[in-house]
Amino acid sequence: MLQLYFSPMACSLSSRIALMEAGLEARYHLVHLRTKKVAEDEADFRGVSPKGAVPVLVLENGERLTESAAVLQYIADLKPERGLAPQPGDVDRYRLQEWLSFVGAEIHKAFLFPTFWYQDDASLAKPRGRIAQTLSVPSAHLATREFLVGERFTVADAHLAWALLLLRPAGVDIALWPPLVAYLERMQARPAVRDAIATEMALRKTMAA
Amino acid sequence: MLQLYFSPMACSLSSRIALMEAGLEARYHLVHLRTKKVAEDEADFRGVSPKGAVPVLVLENGERLTESAAVLQYIADLKPERGLAPQPGDVDRYRLQEWLSFVGAEIHKAFLFPTFWYQDDASLAKPRGRIAQTLSVPSAHLATREFLVGERFTVADAHLAWALLLLRPAGVDIALWPPLVAYLERMQARPAVRDAIATEMALRKTMAA
Repeated sequence: MLQLYFSPMACSLSSRIALMEAGLEARYHLVHLRTKKVAEDEADFRGVSPKGAVPVLVLENGERLTESAAVLQYIADLKPERGLAPQPGDVDRYRLQEWLSFVGAEIHKAFLFPTFWYQDDASLAKPRGRIAQTLSVPSAHLATREFLVGERFTVADAHLAWALLLLRPAGVDIALWPPLVAYLERMQARPAVRDAIATEMALRKTMAA
Repeated sequence: MLQLYFSPMACSLSSRIALMEAGLEARYHLVHLRTKKVAEDEADFRGVSPKGAVPVLVLENGERLTESAAVLQYIADLKPERGLAPQPGDVDRYRLQEWLSFVGAEIHKAFLFPTFWYQDDASLAKPRGRIAQTLSVPSAHLATREFLVGERFTVADAHLAWALLLLRPAGVDIALWPPLVAYLERMQARPAVRDAIATEMALRKTMAA
């Protein structure tokens, strides 16, 4: 069975959404990112992945795959009949990769990451100064489209939905971009997305208690 | 003919390397990133891509593709016989995507980007504090391997070689990681890599003059 190392509401949420949209069972291992401990046995998470970052997907053969862009495409390709990624050879597959890169680099690493890990205003001024321009790109794209790529839900939507969810605790009010508000509502109306979020929000509350 | 919008020594260099390794001709358009002008006609680069970032690859059908991870895979797949990316369906294809994401998010967006765009020490302390841990990952991987993925040069190598080249002007001495020094030397010994770098270094000197 597949295994996913995750931290509640971290970027590994998009991998959980992908697994649930694909109808794939998996064992989930909760990781405390600040202490780098696996919750169930207090093991050093760096022994699982030297990067010390989630997601880590353990494949059926025991190999470990990291980085959301790779993990999400791997999961999508396990169940091609679900259409969670355009098939290789379809030009839309590159559009999927384009959005996965944009969410991972521009929203996650260039904004959410410094926002949650750095505390001082000086470190945050520049990321905050760029985020409106960054969000204008998916907002314009989604003003006339239901999904990021093609006519159906893909793992790129799983990744953007996660990123948009995190913008509020990061201090960004997406109400400024109505297409993003409507998009996030559509995504959260999907049972797999709603259930994945509910599961991780509940775990997060338990951790905070 | 393919067209590539680039800025000398920016991350679009890896796309130029990929085109040259693939033996593909292309028209190259120089972009001034700070003014967002296309050099040849002073046109607003945001008219080419609202993101205002390189690379932008103009496909044969006129569509524009952005984000290095997508552009590099697109170029590789145009010439599968060159082996610049493992074939779809090969598990190594996900390893390629994993490294493209790692270079793009962890080295580029989390380190090089703030280093070149932000001037104050406060904004730079955190990225500088993380880079040694980041570089330990490819260094450990390449201690026993010639290339990032499999037994041959792929577009992931084009991307990492670019990132390593930029570390010196960003104030990081990669001599601390001998496997990375040896790897970069191997990459720079490749005619396509060497010629791509020489072309962009010459353009950069012209711009600075």
